[in-house]
Amino acid sequence: MKQLWLFNQINADLQRVEEELRRFVGTDYPLLDESSVHLLAAGGKRLRPAFTLLAGKFYDYSFEKLLPIAMALELIHMATLVHDDVVDASLTRRGRETVKAKWGNVVSVQTGDYLLAKSLVLIAQIDHPVISGILARVSVEMCQGEIQQIKSSFDTKQTPKQYYYRIKRKTALLISASCKLGGIASSAPPRQIWALGAYGHALGMAFQIVDDVLDITARPTELGKPVGGDLHQGIMTLPMILALRSSAEGGRLEELLAKPDKSGEEISTAIEWIRRSGAIEESMHWVERYVAKAVGYLEELPDVTTRRALQELAEFIRVRKF
Amino acid sequence: MKQLWLFNQINADLQRVEEELRRFVGTDYPLLDESSVHLLAAGGKRLRPAFTLLAGKFYDYSFEKLLPIAMALELIHMATLVHDDVVDASLTRRGRETVKAKWGNVVSVQTGDYLLAKSLVLIAQIDHPVISGILARVSVEMCQGEIQQIKSSFDTKQTPKQYYYRIKRKTALLISASCKLGGIASSAPPRQIWALGAYGHALGMAFQIVDDVLDITARPTELGKPVGGDLHQGIMTLPMILALRSSAEGGRLEELLAKPDKSGEEISTAIEWIRRSGAIEESMHWVERYVAKAVGYLEELPDVTTRRALQELAEFIRVRKF
Repeated sequence: MKQLWLFNQINADLQRVEEELRRFVGTDYPLLDESSVHLLAAGGKRLRPAFTLLAGKFYDYSFEKLLPIAMALELIHMATLVHDDVVDASLTRRGRETVKAKWGNVVSVQTGDYLLAKSLVLIAQIDHPVISGILARVSVEMCQGEIQQIKSSFDTKQTPKQYYYRIKRKTALLISASCKLGGIASSAPPRQIWALGAYGHALGMAFQIVDDVLDITARPTELGKPVGGDLHQGIMTLPMILALRSSAEGGRLEELLAKPDKSGEEISTAIEWIRRSGAIEESMHWVERYVAKAVGYLEELPDVTTRRALQELAEFIRVRKF
Repeated sequence: MKQLWLFNQINADLQRVEEELRRFVGTDYPLLDESSVHLLAAGGKRLRPAFTLLAGKFYDYSFEKLLPIAMALELIHMATLVHDDVVDASLTRRGRETVKAKWGNVVSVQTGDYLLAKSLVLIAQIDHPVISGILARVSVEMCQGEIQQIKSSFDTKQTPKQYYYRIKRKTALLISASCKLGGIASSAPPRQIWALGAYGHALGMAFQIVDDVLDITARPTELGKPVGGDLHQGIMTLPMILALRSSAEGGRLEELLAKPDKSGEEISTAIEWIRRSGAIEESMHWVERYVAKAVGYLEELPDVTTRRALQELAEFIRVRKF
């Protein structure tokens, strides 16, 4: 995603965010430094900082104001990723945990806490109650989404509504906040701040549905992680929920999805049945709808280059393969 | 500790902190609500809120100002406890982790994150950069202390200096902040704010050394948790570090302390050797010194009832059995 022209406008500043993050996260504690810097070095799309910077371009762009917000957003995102790994590992490696895996968990918990604490330092410095309030509330809601995901694992009775509720908290709220905060920090008018938040929300929803579709349809080499991870972990995604309603396999698919320890073969069968059910196309239909909504909200914003970038970013979400 | 007269002055307000905490932590998410409220209901000494309220008594006591600080401090403390459990469990139950234990870990990580995020909501509302800055920096340093503890597990070459460095971050900094913030929120003069922080720091150090001594000397029924937990987890405490220097068993004790999977019998032997070495008395000598320092700092503060309470609290630390 880094190669896209969409980021041309902010690439230099995004690079500065990256450098500041590395400097800020570094610590004299070797283990913590290693794990945190490793995590940063592993990259990631830096989507949240990018949205903040792009959203800041519509009005009074001030990199100094946007920087701590962009950094805090990325730190919160990274912290949830590390803690999700703890969660995922304990679900998928049941009974077969190695000492190494355990040390990994221990360090993961602490690294996540450290990143959260560092984001707290930034938030405390921002000294803008509206901004810090938004970041705080998003953090709470993300935790609520995560616990909902844990609770609903392997639950085949979930509705699309429950799924949307979860991914809103898991993904859409933070992306929405990233856009909104860019608007707030650049003194956008209230209606435009709202539109930026609404754009980020719709885009985040689309982004997560695509993520969940790719977990079923992607080639492992493209995805950079094993396909079928959600099936393994019992995370019921939209393609699964829709397939349960339309698959010719009906009860057999339900039984399979509810099964806690699926073999590789069972995962393949489940993927096959989901693909055949038409649930992928139906899921992508919802992606289209969210992307269209996102693009619609942009109408509220001034017609500058950045708007075109945000439009194309939304279109790109639909076709991404990674 | 709740029964001590020391808290008489603030008992009603401490009760209000408790009620506000319960209300604030409650959520519509059953699993999260259950784990968080369970954690709160399990009690605890609420030492940090108590220190904040007591420290607030010297100058312009305002419960409304002290409340969010006291709540945030307790939430941070609770979050670290929950996350420490994840850490501890993965160290001690190696290879024998049950599904139940794993679900426990998953929920623990999320519950800890949730409590941290809730503290963030309070901190964002406080809108006093000095106060939120202190809370943020303490959180970072606590993470650094925890990672240091993980890194130094089973390391018998540790010096007392390294131990003090760790427990400062693990315990003393948060208690110090509790006292200091009570002073700041009640408009204490700078020198008195410093004295409150110094008192809390010395007291926190004494408190943690006693904790570590009790892990070796207490009866399980008094302690409320198994004795020898630190030996199990390989956490090198002051009594162990001092015993390694003076024990007649020398190398045999070192070998035992460095051993990752100690049997119950080995734990008992280690406890016996440590007791015989005189390290317990020597550790308690350091407790006396810290308590004396803590009491000394109180001289800087107005001679009101609260000062007497803080003095006795310091004295009490020395003799506590739980």
